[in-house]
Amino acid sequence: MTTLREALFAPKAVAIVGQSNDATKTAGRPLKFLRQMGYAGRVYPINPGRETVLGERAWPSLAALPETPDHAYIVTPTEAAIEAVAECGQRGVKAATVLADGFTEAGEVGDRRVAKLRAICAATGIRVVGPSSLGIVDLRSRAMLTANAAFDERELPAGHIFAASHSGSMIGALLSRGKARGLHFAGLVSVGNEIDLSLGEICQATLDDPGIDGYMLFLETMRHAETLRRFALAAHQQGKPIIAYKLGRSEAARELAVTHTGALAGEDDVADAFLADCGIARVDTLDGLIEGLPLLRRLPPPPYPPPQAGEGKGGGRRATVGVVTTTGGGATMVVDPLSSRGIAIERPSDATLARFKAAGIEVKPARIIDVTLAGARYDVMKAALDILTTAPEYDVILAVIGSSARFHPELAVKPIVDSASATKPLVACLVPDAPEALAMLSEAGVPNFRTPEACADAMAAALRRRAPRSLDRSWPGSSSQVGFTRLAQSNSAQLGQAQVAIPSTASEHHIHQDVDARDKHGHDERGGRLLDELEAGALLELLGVPRAPTLALDAGIAQAPVLPFAYPVAVKALTAEIAHKTEVGGVVLGVADGIALITAIAQIKANVAQHRPGTRLQQVLVQPMIAGLGEALIGYRVDSAAGPLVMVATGGILAELYRDRSLRLAPVDLATARDMIAEVRALQALAGFRGRPKGDLDALANAIVALSQLAKDPSVVEAEINPLIVRSDGVIAVDALVKRA
Amino acid sequence: MTTLREALFAPKAVAIVGQSNDATKTAGRPLKFLRQMGYAGRVYPINPGRETVLGERAWPSLAALPETPDHAYIVTPTEAAIEAVAECGQRGVKAATVLADGFTEAGEVGDRRVAKLRAICAATGIRVVGPSSLGIVDLRSRAMLTANAAFDERELPAGHIFAASHSGSMIGALLSRGKARGLHFAGLVSVGNEIDLSLGEICQATLDDPGIDGYMLFLETMRHAETLRRFALAAHQQGKPIIAYKLGRSEAARELAVTHTGALAGEDDVADAFLADCGIARVDTLDGLIEGLPLLRRLPPPPYPPPQAGEGKGGGRRATVGVVTTTGGGATMVVDPLSSRGIAIERPSDATLARFKAAGIEVKPARIIDVTLAGARYDVMKAALDILTTAPEYDVILAVIGSSARFHPELAVKPIVDSASATKPLVACLVPDAPEALAMLSEAGVPNFRTPEACADAMAAALRRRAPRSLDRSWPGSSSQVGFTRLAQSNSAQLGQAQVAIPSTASEHHIHQDVDARDKHGHDERGGRLLDELEAGALLELLGVPRAPTLALDAGIAQAPVLPFAYPVAVKALTAEIAHKTEVGGVVLGVADGIALITAIAQIKANVAQHRPGTRLQQVLVQPMIAGLGEALIGYRVDSAAGPLVMVATGGILAELYRDRSLRLAPVDLATARDMIAEVRALQALAGFRGRPKGDLDALANAIVALSQLAKDPSVVEAEINPLIVRSDGVIAVDALVKRA
Repeated sequence: MTTLREALFAPKAVAIVGQSNDATKTAGRPLKFLRQMGYAGRVYPINPGRETVLGERAWPSLAALPETPDHAYIVTPTEAAIEAVAECGQRGVKAATVLADGFTEAGEVGDRRVAKLRAICAATGIRVVGPSSLGIVDLRSRAMLTANAAFDERELPAGHIFAASHSGSMIGALLSRGKARGLHFAGLVSVGNEIDLSLGEICQATLDDPGIDGYMLFLETMRHAETLRRFALAAHQQGKPIIAYKLGRSEAARELAVTHTGALAGEDDVADAFLADCGIARVDTLDGLIEGLPLLRRLPPPPYPPPQAGEGKGGGRRATVGVVTTTGGGATMVVDPLSSRGIAIERPSDATLARFKAAGIEVKPARIIDVTLAGARYDVMKAALDILTTAPEYDVILAVIGSSARFHPELAVKPIVDSASATKPLVACLVPDAPEALAMLSEAGVPNFRTPEACADAMAAALRRRAPRSLDRSWPGSSSQVGFTRLAQSNSAQLGQAQVAIPSTASEHHIHQDVDARDKHGHDERGGRLLDELEAGALLELLGVPRAPTLALDAGIAQAPVLPFAYPVAVKALTAEIAHKTEVGGVVLGVADGIALITAIAQIKANVAQHRPGTRLQQVLVQPMIAGLGEALIGYRVDSAAGPLVMVATGGILAELYRDRSLRLAPVDLATARDMIAEVRALQALAGFRGRPKGDLDALANAIVALSQLAKDPSVVEAEINPLIVRSDGVIAVDALVKRA
Repeated sequence: MTTLREALFAPKAVAIVGQSNDATKTAGRPLKFLRQMGYAGRVYPINPGRETVLGERAWPSLAALPETPDHAYIVTPTEAAIEAVAECGQRGVKAATVLADGFTEAGEVGDRRVAKLRAICAATGIRVVGPSSLGIVDLRSRAMLTANAAFDERELPAGHIFAASHSGSMIGALLSRGKARGLHFAGLVSVGNEIDLSLGEICQATLDDPGIDGYMLFLETMRHAETLRRFALAAHQQGKPIIAYKLGRSEAARELAVTHTGALAGEDDVADAFLADCGIARVDTLDGLIEGLPLLRRLPPPPYPPPQAGEGKGGGRRATVGVVTTTGGGATMVVDPLSSRGIAIERPSDATLARFKAAGIEVKPARIIDVTLAGARYDVMKAALDILTTAPEYDVILAVIGSSARFHPELAVKPIVDSASATKPLVACLVPDAPEALAMLSEAGVPNFRTPEACADAMAAALRRRAPRSLDRSWPGSSSQVGFTRLAQSNSAQLGQAQVAIPSTASEHHIHQDVDARDKHGHDERGGRLLDELEAGALLELLGVPRAPTLALDAGIAQAPVLPFAYPVAVKALTAEIAHKTEVGGVVLGVADGIALITAIAQIKANVAQHRPGTRLQQVLVQPMIAGLGEALIGYRVDSAAGPLVMVATGGILAELYRDRSLRLAPVDLATARDMIAEVRALQALAGFRGRPKGDLDALANAIVALSQLAKDPSVVEAEINPLIVRSDGVIAVDALVKRA
C-alpha cells in the first residue's frame, strides 16, 4: 500500500493532466523538468488534443492509462481541474496536486469550487495539494511535479532540508538562493490554498523521512494552525528544527494576504505567540530564513519548563552572546540589530579577561572582544576562540571577521573552522564578500551569514526559541479572530486615566462597547452569552483572581444595610440587558454614606426606567472605591486560528496607540506570565522604573496564570478583567467580562 | 600648487613610511597594492632598517628623499607615527594618512598624542587623515594608500561612487561587495579618528571631481557634524546624492562606539534628524547601503520648502508607491517592511484599473497589481508598466518578479529594462537568485535589489529624503549632548497624569530635577544660567507662545488683590534659588478664593523659611488652574554635535518608556512642525483618534515653530515648555524653563 508520503514524494508513477507541448508555457514545464532531472518512475502526460507532447506519447485521459498513477499533477484551467480531480479520485489516485487558481481567493464562485473539491476528497479518499500549487518536488526521487520556472536546472544536488510555502514563487526563490550558497533541499512544496492537505499535514507526512533534518517554512497566513502545531511538536520530538518567515508584520501586508489567498491573516502578535509556542523560530529576513537552519541545529531550545526560571526571566531566553572580532565597526553592525531585538551582548567576566591577558591578547573590557586588525592572525583568533568557547558566561559565540576573510581566510576564518567542534555553539559573520571563506565555514558545519542583518535576525530567532509545550486546553475555535482588537478599541473610553486607578465608568463603558459590537454583528455571528458582573466575578474568584468586595443589594430596599466595607462606594445596575450602563445613568461613583446609597439606587432606577422603559432592575452592585499604583488589563480568548490565548496590557489609549501588549497560548505558567509582564513596556512603570513605587507584579503574574486556566474550560470563549488594580501588595479585579459559548 | 584633493587622491609622488618587506603583514600591503594596481606616480618606501623592501629600494628617512611627496601613508607604530607626521610637516608634505591606533580611543595617553598631532598640523600646515585610518584609495589614479586586505585585487574597475567610512574594515566590505554586484568606486577613504581632516572635509575636497556622482557613507558617530552638513548641502547643490548607514540604533551599539572610537555617539534620533535635515538618505541594512545609490539618483528629493505642504504632510514625503508583480507573496515581502517604515502603498485609481481592463489584463483592486504567474509574459508586464508609469497617482513604481527571472528574464524582466526611460522612476526586486537579470537591470540603469529587505530599506530612505535647508541659526555647541534625555527623565515625576492637564507640581518638579542634575555635575560643566519662571514666560511670550496668565504678587501682601482671572488658582514661590519648590512646600494648588490665597502665601513663606532658612522670598506667582484635552512637551536645545534642535513629545512616564518624541534641526517651519506632531504616537490621541475630541494641533505646531526660533539667539542653550496644555482651541504654556549660556 502506497503511503501518503510515498505518493507525494516518491511516486512510482505520475500523471501530468493537461501537459502542454510547449515547454515555454507553464503547463509545459512539469514533463520537461521530470525528464531533465531524470525521474526514474513512469510518467503519463495527459493531453486529449495531441498524440505526443514534447516528443512523448500523450494519453487522451486518465481512464486510458494502463495503471493507476500514485500522484497526478493537474495543470489544466480551473473547471477542468475539478473534473480531473474527480476522475483521479474515482480511479483511485492517491494524491493530486492542482495548479489552477480560482478557489478560495475567488469569492462565491470560488467557494462553490472549494466545496466541490472537498466533496470529491470526502467521497473518493483522494488527497489534494493546492489548488494554486506551483508544485511538489523531491530531489531524491527526482519527482519534479512543478511548474515553477526556477526549477529549470541542470544540476540540483539533493540535501536534507524540506521547504514548504504558501507562495508558489518562493519555492523557486529558496531553491535558487540556496543553491547559490551550496545549500540544498530534500524536497519542496507549494501548498497553495490548502483546501484539503494543509502545510502542517504535508510536513507531518515527511517526518519519518530520515533524509530530512530541518524545515524551512514561508507562511502567508495562520490557516490550519492546529495541524502546523501538531507537526511542530512532533518535529521537536525528533530534534528537527523549524525556521519560518511569516508575512504580515504590517497592516498592509495582512490586507494583501486576504486578497492574495482569501485567508484572514489575523493579528501579527498572535502569529508570533503561536509560532513561538510551537518552538518554531520566526525570522524577519529572507536571508535569515535561508541561512538560519544550521544555527538552529547547533542551538536546540532549552527544555520546557526552563530549569531555572528566575524573576523576569523564563521561557526560552538564553543569557548571553559573546562577540569576538577583527573589526569593531563590522561587529557592531551585527550587535546593533541583535540588541534592538532584545538579545543581550555582555562583556566578558573578569576571569575571562584575565585569561586574555595571560594569553598575551590585549582587549578592552567592552561588550565586543575586538582583537583589531592587528589580531587578524591565526594564533590570536584561535586563542581568543579557545577562551570564549570555554567561558562559562556565554551561551553562544559570534565571530565577525573583517577584510582578511576575502583573500586570507587562513588568518581569522581558519581558527573558526578549527573551533567548529567546541562545546559552545559558534557563529560566523563575514564583513567583506568572501565566498570561499563562507564555503569553508559551511563545510565545517559552522553556521555562517553573509550580512549582519541576516546574522542578527537568525541569532535572535534562535536564541528566543523555546521548546514547544503540550498544552492542556480546549480548541473550540469559536471566537472571532478580531476579539482582542475589539476589546482594545473600547479602551478609547478611558480618556486621560491611563494610570490612575479608578473603579471606573471607563471599564463599564468598555464591556458595553463590546456588547454593542456584538449587537451590531448579531448575536449569532459572534456566538456566546455574556455573564452578568456578579457571575463573571464569581468565576474569577473560582480561578483565584482577587476581586473587589462586591455586594448585591435588592433594588427595592428602603434603608441601607451595614456594608462589609467602608464608604465611599460605587453603585452599579446589575443587568445584562443594558449595554451602556453609564450612558443610561446606571452607575454612581463616590457614594459617601447610607443615605446617599439609597438616593443613588433610586436615581439609578429612575434613570434606567427613563432611558430603558421595561427593563427589570432587581438588583444593584455595591463595591468600595479602590485605588492602587496602576492598572493592568488581562484578557483571554479563543482565537479561531491559534486557539486559547491570554493577554496582558494596560488600559488606556496610549497602550492602544503603541500596540503594547503581550500574549501567549493559554494556559501559561508563572515564569511565562512574568515574561509577558516584562514585554509590556507600560508595565515597566510599575516595576520600579526611575525609582517609582513598585507594584505587585508577582500578584499580576498569578492573575494571568489564573485567567489562562480558562483554556481548560471549553465553555468560555472570551474573558477580560479591566481594570485589574495593581497595588503595592496584591491586585484586585474591579470589573470583568466573561462570555460563554 | 597641489590642492588637497590632488594630494589625497591624485598624488604625483607618495611615501610609505614604515613599509615592511613582508607583504603578508599589514605594513607590507600598501606598496604591494600600489604596484599591483599600476599606480603611475613615484613611490618612496621608507624603512630605515633595510636596503630594499619587496624588491624595491627602501629609503632610510623622509629627509633622504629626492623630492617632497604629495602624500605620505604612515604605517609605523604609534609613537613613530607621530614623529613621522612631524617630519612630513617639516618637509612640506601636503597630507599624511596615519594607520596607527592609540589616539582618541586610548584615554589620557591618547589625548596627549592627539594634542601633539594637532599641534604639528597647526605649526606646519600638514593635513592628516586618521589616525586609525586603513587608508585612502583612488581607483582612477590607482593611488592605493591602504593596508586593508580586501584591496588585494587583480582587477578593480573604476566607477563613480566615493565611499567614506569611520570603520577601516568597511571600505573593504563596500569594495568587495560592490564588485560582486558590478558596482565600482572612484575612491574610498577610511577616515579613522578624524583628529584633523573630518569625513565631511575629505568628501568636500572631492566635490569638484566630475568623475564622482554619489557618496556612500558608513558612520559610527556624529563627530564633526558641522563639516558633514556643509558637505551635504554642497553635494545637494551639485545633484550628487548621499546615502549613509549609521551605527547606533541600539544602546549597546552606542556604547560600543565610545569604546571603539572614543567618540560620544549621541542619541540615535538626533542623528536621524540631523542626517534627514542634511538631505542624506539613512539606510538600516548593509545591502541597502550598497544597492541604494542608483535609486537616489533616480529619485531626487522634492525641493525645500515643499510646494504643497498640506495638513499632516510636509517635509519630503512622497505620496505613493505602485507595485506590480508576478508573485503576490514575493511582492508582499517588500511591501511588508516598506509599510512598517511608514511608506504608503496605494491601490490604483479607478481610472488606472479601467486602463488595465481595457488592456485585457485582469487584476484585483488591491494594493499590489498581481498579474500572477500567468502574467509572467513580456506583453502583459510591458503593458502593465506602461499603464503604471503613466498613472498620475504614483510617484514611483516597484516591480517584483518571481521565478521566471532566473532563467527567463525575457518574460518579465525585459519589460522593466525596456521601461527604464519612463518618466516615473522604476525599481526592480527579483525574488529568485537571478544574477543575469540583475545585470541587465543595472546595465539599463534600473535601480534593483537582491533582497526584499534591502529594497524596502532603500526605497523608504529614498522616499523620506528631503532637500537640505540652509538654516538661519547659531551653532554655539555649548550644551550637553544628553540634554533631552535628562529633561525627559524628569518626567517620571508626572506619575499618573499623562493626559490630565494640571498646572502642575509635576512640571515644577521637572525643572528642579534638571537644576539638581546640573548641580551634581557642577555649574561650570553644564554652563548657563536658568531664568526664573517670570523671565522664561516673558521670553516665550515674545516668541509668540501663548502662556497662562501669570500674576506676580508681593509675598508680603496682607489682602488679596482683585485677580485678572477667576479662582481657583495655583500659587508658586518665585525664586531661582530653590531647586525643588514642591518638596519645600513652595507650591499650593486649587486655591479657592482671596482668603485662601493669603493663607497659601503665608504657608509657602513658612514652608520655605523652615526648609530653606535664609532664602529671600520676595514674590509669588499666581496662575489660574488650566484644563485642556491633553498635554504636550516642547523642547529646544543646542546639541554639541547637531546644533540647535527642537523637540515635541508628551509628558509622562509612558512617553518616556516608549521613547516617543520627534525632533528636527531648529528652526522649523509650519509644515515641518506638523510632520513632527504626526510622528509622535501619543499625540494621535489629540488628532481625533477613535472619535475623541480634537486638540488644536495647528496651535501646537505654531508653538513648535515659535520655540524653534530660539535657534537665532545664540544666548539660549536650552528651553522647555512642559506642560503645554492643548485645548480644543489653542494651546497654553503653563510652565517653562529657559537657560542662557
